[in-house]
Amino acid sequence: MLRKLSCLLLLGFAAPAIAETLPLPDGLIALNSVDGQALLIGSEARSDYFELSIHFTNQVHPAFCGPASMSMVLNALNVPRPASNMTLGLGMFDQDNVFTPATEAVKPRALIERAGLTLDELGAMFEAHSLKATVRHAEESSVEEFRTLARESIDDAESFVLVNYLRSSIGQERGGHISPLGAYDAETDRFLILDVTRYKYPPVWVRTDDLFQAMNTPDSDNDNRSRGYLLVRQ
Amino acid sequence: MLRKLSCLLLLGFAAPAIAETLPLPDGLIALNSVDGQALLIGSEARSDYFELSIHFTNQVHPAFCGPASMSMVLNALNVPRPASNMTLGLGMFDQDNVFTPATEAVKPRALIERAGLTLDELGAMFEAHSLKATVRHAEESSVEEFRTLARESIDDAESFVLVNYLRSSIGQERGGHISPLGAYDAETDRFLILDVTRYKYPPVWVRTDDLFQAMNTPDSDNDNRSRGYLLVRQ
Ligand SMILES: [Ca+2]
Ligand SMILES: [Ca+2]
Ligand SMILES: [Ca+2]
Ligand SMILES: [Ca+2]
Repeated sequence: MLRKLSCLLLLGFAAPAIAETLPLPDGLIALNSVDGQALLIGSEARSDYFELSIHFTNQVHPAFCGPASMSMVLNALNVPRPASNMTLGLGMFDQDNVFTPATEAVKPRALIERAGLTLDELGAMFEAHSLKATVRHAEESSVEEFRTLARESIDDAESFVLVNYLRSSIGQERGGHISPLGAYDAETDRFLILDVTRYKYPPVWVRTDDLFQAMNTPDSDNDNRSRGYLLVRQ
Repeated sequence: MLRKLSCLLLLGFAAPAIAETLPLPDGLIALNSVDGQALLIGSEARSDYFELSIHFTNQVHPAFCGPASMSMVLNALNVPRPASNMTLGLGMFDQDNVFTPATEAVKPRALIERAGLTLDELGAMFEAHSLKATVRHAEESSVEEFRTLARESIDDAESFVLVNYLRSSIGQERGGHISPLGAYDAETDRFLILDVTRYKYPPVWVRTDDLFQAMNTPDSDNDNRSRGYLLVRQ
């Protein structure tokens, strides 16, 4: 049985072929909507968007929001990339080769497939790739600190920011989730989440307050510590 | 033996882990460079970019530039999406489920793995998905017609444009290739290619003249007819 809801779809019906992702609540703005496009064009911080979007990927397993997000950030950072099954010798991180002997020691892949990753485990996975990871649980941070640090990280070419939040808190289906942030718009005070569950939701612009509240939720898989955010750099 | 160069890497050495894609020639501008970002922000046609970038993918097989491009365009078009291996019942096209009994009748997947797709076959593959595909060989078109039709298609929410070109003609490694276009910048007269060989090259802005010249090259796998472009709509 799956103990952890992280990244998991919990729809109670068998869906036929559909043309759309799930409906978005009023508070979220899809990147590919007219308003969402305008927010990116007029955003005040977006350098990470370009580095991440060219490596934007879909999680290949229901519990792999963390490994999918890791592959994007590792490709976006200027670190040596291992050869992938599909690259004929050229380097690219994917959702297989992000797992290494060092990450197995943090949490074995087989266990991640059953239970996903907590915020602290995600930080340790990046450290197992010899990167510096700063974990900030929302309960020990503030919306002001998050806004400042995340915006700075988006502007800083050497740093990336990932968020671990409860989807239902922002009106999405449904459990805990992990994805990287790409951009910030100051006028609307919204961050762009590059949601790795691409079949389920498009990237969305979310209000900073709403995102922080969704991070400031207890994670039963992490001793009820709150979710939060993670800054990664070399 | 692989008869067709389409999409294939032909590097004569075993590469170690590397941090970068291959070097770009002077004539191309990477989307994630400072100049490339500014071109997107200031582009005159880019609505397709947003629909395609949220489905941007990496080809999973050396000969799958065509199927990878198809999966992006099919997801971007408002057509019913089949369930994928990874979507738990929600719809998304990938590089497995783009192959159907109807596409097998066009060209079997096993043969595409050996020989890729020609421009005409790519059009027929889209038609096998009940879409309207307009194939334009460069030798029967002109740079002016291509610029007009491709720009219109980028602006038209119901239509997408793919290009089939010879990489070496624009200074890249090396053979025939297929990818969708995302945007057009009028001042520099450049189109943005969302190159599906993401481990090899970033998305690039290419001059219209240079791209047309790279399409106006004979394809030995297609009776030496020239490469060209393809407009797809419902
Ligand atoms: Ca703004
Ligand atoms: Ca950054
Ligand atoms: Ca312009
Ligand atoms: Ca279009």
